[in-house]
Amino acid sequence: MLVPGAGRGRSAEPSAERVEADLAALAALTDRDRPGWTRMALTEAELEGRQWALRQLRDLGLRTRADAAGNVIGVLEGSSAGAGALMTGSHTDTVDGGGRFDGVVGFVGALEAVRLIKESGRTLRHDLVVADFFGEEPNRFGLSCVGSRALAGRLTPAHLDLTDAAGQRFGAALAQSGIDAGRAVRARLEPGYVRAFIELHVEQGPVLERAGSQVGLVTSITGVTRFRALFTGVRGHAGTTAMPDRRDAGCAAAGTVLAVERIASAHEHARGTTGSVLFTPDAVNIVTGQAELTGELRSPDGDWLGYAREELLGAARAESAGRGVQLDWQWLPSEPPVPLDGTLLGVCQRATSRLGYQAALMYSAAEHDAAVLAALGPAAMIFIPSRDGRSHCPEEWTDTGDVLAGVHALTECLLSADESL
Amino acid sequence: MLVPGAGRGRSAEPSAERVEADLAALAALTDRDRPGWTRMALTEAELEGRQWALRQLRDLGLRTRADAAGNVIGVLEGSSAGAGALMTGSHTDTVDGGGRFDGVVGFVGALEAVRLIKESGRTLRHDLVVADFFGEEPNRFGLSCVGSRALAGRLTPAHLDLTDAAGQRFGAALAQSGIDAGRAVRARLEPGYVRAFIELHVEQGPVLERAGSQVGLVTSITGVTRFRALFTGVRGHAGTTAMPDRRDAGCAAAGTVLAVERIASAHEHARGTTGSVLFTPDAVNIVTGQAELTGELRSPDGDWLGYAREELLGAARAESAGRGVQLDWQWLPSEPPVPLDGTLLGVCQRATSRLGYQAALMYSAAEHDAAVLAALGPAAMIFIPSRDGRSHCPEEWTDTGDVLAGVHALTECLLSADESL
Repeated sequence: MLVPGAGRGRSAEPSAERVEADLAALAALTDRDRPGWTRMALTEAELEGRQWALRQLRDLGLRTRADAAGNVIGVLEGSSAGAGALMTGSHTDTVDGGGRFDGVVGFVGALEAVRLIKESGRTLRHDLVVADFFGEEPNRFGLSCVGSRALAGRLTPAHLDLTDAAGQRFGAALAQSGIDAGRAVRARLEPGYVRAFIELHVEQGPVLERAGSQVGLVTSITGVTRFRALFTGVRGHAGTTAMPDRRDAGCAAAGTVLAVERIASAHEHARGTTGSVLFTPDAVNIVTGQAELTGELRSPDGDWLGYAREELLGAARAESAGRGVQLDWQWLPSEPPVPLDGTLLGVCQRATSRLGYQAALMYSAAEHDAAVLAALGPAAMIFIPSRDGRSHCPEEWTDTGDVLAGVHALTECLLSADESL
Repeated sequence: MLVPGAGRGRSAEPSAERVEADLAALAALTDRDRPGWTRMALTEAELEGRQWALRQLRDLGLRTRADAAGNVIGVLEGSSAGAGALMTGSHTDTVDGGGRFDGVVGFVGALEAVRLIKESGRTLRHDLVVADFFGEEPNRFGLSCVGSRALAGRLTPAHLDLTDAAGQRFGAALAQSGIDAGRAVRARLEPGYVRAFIELHVEQGPVLERAGSQVGLVTSITGVTRFRALFTGVRGHAGTTAMPDRRDAGCAAAGTVLAVERIASAHEHARGTTGSVLFTPDAVNIVTGQAELTGELRSPDGDWLGYAREELLGAARAESAGRGVQLDWQWLPSEPPVPLDGTLLGVCQRATSRLGYQAALMYSAAEHDAAVLAALGPAAMIFIPSRDGRSHCPEEWTDTGDVLAGVHALTECLLSADESL
């Protein structure tokens, strides 16, 4: 398949056949009991995905390891001892009912970049480290980017003490999946080793498609703050409990869902979502005694996130107090906005431009391992279009031509970084 | 135990020991996997409850049957052939996580009334029919009062075609529990046979407790209209889907929950409750693609119910349309308000007054089998207090003294009706 600009860069064209075969291989390793293409962290399907990833890296001749934090890592050794590493890759876990591209194109693209570099006969100065990061998607403990946190030395004992709705500790769930939580927090990479991290990813939004661009470069990654809210009212009979006598936890929760929507809608780049709700009991003729919400606010503007947190908590308190409902509010682990490295961005701009792409500069409203890896060294992200801007759903789609454009850009950016860093 | 007014009526005092033993026996037959005292229709525990009820009626020497609609019935034959029947009883099924008194006191009280009448050596002119009505509480198909509907000839083939959230037909669920749906709709009692139905029940509200009354008599039973609303939006990524681009089914549902509360709060005797909610998917970082609500409106005012239905549907349409969400609205089987028979009420007022009770006249905001049985003949209800007005919850409580007062009143009302009707 012809890729726009092919032949103008220093890297060969990626192979549609190989990339599509890898996408199909991962699409076949999913949880049959869940909708779409589901490989949620801490499940059997996801473990199979990581085992597949390990085999691919080994078959490419890389030095591989499955580290203490569940990451799958392959290293193509560089020629210059002490030059440090270029790192790439993404994640193979998905949300429940997710699609075939989120995370996957970044890992599959890294495999193809390694092939192209090896086929070119070129030896990089730096080690090239390819990773399948463990547990990037938020899990039931409210934590995302588990593996990359560990590599960056940011997986803390406090994270392991997070509990799910059933009261299980995150550390215990990791242990059940064969990951030794005590060692996982010590899986960090040596400071200074990573000279650049470049991640290819689907945009998951409509910006590139609307702009007619095949490639985007990310300038900053959104901040995210998540909450869990427990509303405790008084369960009662739906007929005999007069409206003024009610302490309806469900109505207090519904008012808070609307507050999340209202607060985020007032700011152009903000997002507010209440994705999960549970009424207890859940019966047509019973006033709800307890309601639980989990949701989040996002923005590339850290100051706004601070104000919005206060506003949301105030709104939830008002919805509760007005109904005699008790509110237990918990802020889950939050991430500040992360500006990406300007020098590495310049390297990537010149590399993609050489391939003929007018790369759109954009911010990422999705979380990514790159935001965590930025703590280890300069980080960059290459985005490719998502059809209709959709993601985290079975309809998620990116045309092969766009995937190949992204892989070509990734390869060229890695080569440029190897020369210039 | 002394009961206020004991000795002044024509019936002997009920036995605290026997009534408490029966309450305890039913409290022991519950679903161990559910909170509180749970015997939901179509479960193993509820079947055991009905089998217990059948044994009690048989042990009292009544002519018993388990009818085609799941009702358990015992008949104490009257002396006057063709005089028809006095009917009493209630139900032994409960809501999920219910209490020990709702329905149960009406059946246990009927057993004690039979004992007192038999011990008095008196033979009634009418047959005395004691029933444990099948499936009084709303089930997952949105239908309540299943057994009494069948007796009144009001269980229709359309009811059997109701489906639950999983798409199962109600008729199929009945068949799984050994109830032949085809025969159930033909279980109706002979028209004209029931001359009076008198049901003892806990109030399930705070009126009697606040008024300091032990006994209430019901003048009318609330109308109830239930709905199921399915909101279909577009599932999306919680970061990359900008607020104006969203079609968030969860927010449309939350707005509708608040509309139910708002509409019912504007009318003193109205109730509005959204007891059940389901978001699909249910994940912190996904915009909700589909949300389902089930809820209800109640009022003793049939006209208001009609207006309120229109207002609620309009509000749900506005919440949906404003967010680009599709609304599928279904009205579940609804019941109009039922005024109870004035002549029978007078008989009961004089009987309870003879026992020394100043019976409060009140409307019932809860549904009851009596509202359905009223289609067969004159119906009356005797209420006794509920502590803190609570019901449909494990905390539901009525003191034994109040239960005995209710049983004494029930017995006296049956004896008076036997003489005067």
